[in-house]
Amino acid sequence: MIKIAIVGFGKIAQDQHLPALQKNPDYQLVAVASRNASLDGVAHYKTLEELLDAVPDLDAVSLCAPPAVRYAQAQLALAHGKHVFLEKPPGATLSEVEALSEQAKAAGKTLFASWHSRYAQGVAPAKAWLADKTIKAVQVNWKEDVRVWHPGQTWIWEPGGMGIFDPAINALSIVTEILPKPFFLKQAALQVPENCQTPIRAQLEFSYERGAAIQADLDFLQTGPQTWDIHVETDQGKLTLSKGGSQIYINDQLEKEGPDEEYPGLYARFAELVKSGQSDVDVAPLRHVADAFMYGRRETIEPFHEDKQ
Amino acid sequence: MIKIAIVGFGKIAQDQHLPALQKNPDYQLVAVASRNASLDGVAHYKTLEELLDAVPDLDAVSLCAPPAVRYAQAQLALAHGKHVFLEKPPGATLSEVEALSEQAKAAGKTLFASWHSRYAQGVAPAKAWLADKTIKAVQVNWKEDVRVWHPGQTWIWEPGGMGIFDPAINALSIVTEILPKPFFLKQAALQVPENCQTPIRAQLEFSYERGAAIQADLDFLQTGPQTWDIHVETDQGKLTLSKGGSQIYINDQLEKEGPDEEYPGLYARFAELVKSGQSDVDVAPLRHVADAFMYGRRETIEPFHEDKQ
Repeated sequence: MIKIAIVGFGKIAQDQHLPALQKNPDYQLVAVASRNASLDGVAHYKTLEELLDAVPDLDAVSLCAPPAVRYAQAQLALAHGKHVFLEKPPGATLSEVEALSEQAKAAGKTLFASWHSRYAQGVAPAKAWLADKTIKAVQVNWKEDVRVWHPGQTWIWEPGGMGIFDPAINALSIVTEILPKPFFLKQAALQVPENCQTPIRAQLEFSYERGAAIQADLDFLQTGPQTWDIHVETDQGKLTLSKGGSQIYINDQLEKEGPDEEYPGLYARFAELVKSGQSDVDVAPLRHVADAFMYGRRETIEPFHEDKQ
Repeated sequence: MIKIAIVGFGKIAQDQHLPALQKNPDYQLVAVASRNASLDGVAHYKTLEELLDAVPDLDAVSLCAPPAVRYAQAQLALAHGKHVFLEKPPGATLSEVEALSEQAKAAGKTLFASWHSRYAQGVAPAKAWLADKTIKAVQVNWKEDVRVWHPGQTWIWEPGGMGIFDPAINALSIVTEILPKPFFLKQAALQVPENCQTPIRAQLEFSYERGAAIQADLDFLQTGPQTWDIHVETDQGKLTLSKGGSQIYINDQLEKEGPDEEYPGLYARFAELVKSGQSDVDVAPLRHVADAFMYGRRETIEPFHEDKQ
């Protein structure tokens, strides 16, 4: 039984982490640390520091606060000998994730950089199906309406907020998981509203082995139908992951779909890692985002105002 | 004896790589591959492909062309079983360097991501002196005149050209080498001329352990005296690396300075790596640059024109 606390009890913690923890018998949720939110029947602390002082036999923390504070919290928890589960993205910068990874190794504790989309129903079957195929082309279409899915989340437009890459890093986490070989950016165009720091649209082109191209069309201003699709053409037919990875199609035939079990999958994985004394820190999705910021061409476009369309 | 060829025979290859190779008895320079430049008495090929076809017993290549073509060349050379020396930066993106690193491992060949400033005379003594000190604060001042040092190099202002980070990555390569612990970006401001893609000035603030701050003031518009200095305050006095690392001062006393032996040092290291069958690919400096692009706040400033001051 892993005694765990949730740190940062906002929307994602309440909607996803809490139910996943409650139905997994490997965990006992012993506390919540959050400035404003608490949970009936569970010990509450304002800060991680207070939590660590008050609950010395705590085994692990799940860090659900925004990425800007993730390093400071993870560093402190590891220094107190706790296992650490990181919401995505695992940090605001690559260097801090690297430093945490070294710290966890030195402390002999588990660090898990979670990518929830990798636990969507279609992802493991897609990876298995693609393992022995030759990839011809990949098209990622990740198009959603920021006004619907992120109302009031102005941090998305600040440095580190990533703009369209906040959702699109989920697509990158899937593509890096299902393709047998690594790939890397050849060119990128980033459209940045003149009153924002981060892109609202992006078009990326990656190289894959043998001249196969991976293209990604990312859009945060999609009204009407929303699209979270990945199409992979191979020498032996076509695979499509749809609805964020929850549906898998082979040659346009639906092969599998299922209920959303992403966070239960993540917590099952974290329990395995803790038991086996291992860590799982794959920075590939965040590295692709950093590459796009470093290597992409920026175009300034009209300002974005959430209330005006 | 390592049979080596230089690929991309531009200014840096002619000024630095060639003399370093010529005076090192571990190497035999057997060819130059370069579209426009050649060297009397040495076989010349237009492209890496022609070189690889024509000289099957070649052991190694030194890739001195701009970073945008580095991956394609390195991938091809490794696929032909050659050891690879990469000029800095090791690639245009982090993901491609990661992919090369995996490829070299699989091929059992040496990949060396060179950082020439780490071989400046003061760097190894600085690293040794700092090893048992507590770091209090670090100030990096890297200020040079782009018009003097990079005339006509318009690629610096294009995506991937890095702007001020093209020289400042040298500072980052030194700081990551001499400090005992890793550090990571807390905030950054990047001033980007409105007609450029990359910053011409930047101010960075990094976190180091125990609250020590690392600050970097980077400027590509410095006229008059030029500055390539790193100051480190410790619990046991002050260290300064000056003139790009070629001079080391302890408590304002000059301890050592010497002739520029950076490239000879790099080629001595590469020969060691080849002999021992190892690779040396430290992406930390490039990762800090990518972090600055991802996490920095951009400010658009007046346009830059090389000919107008």
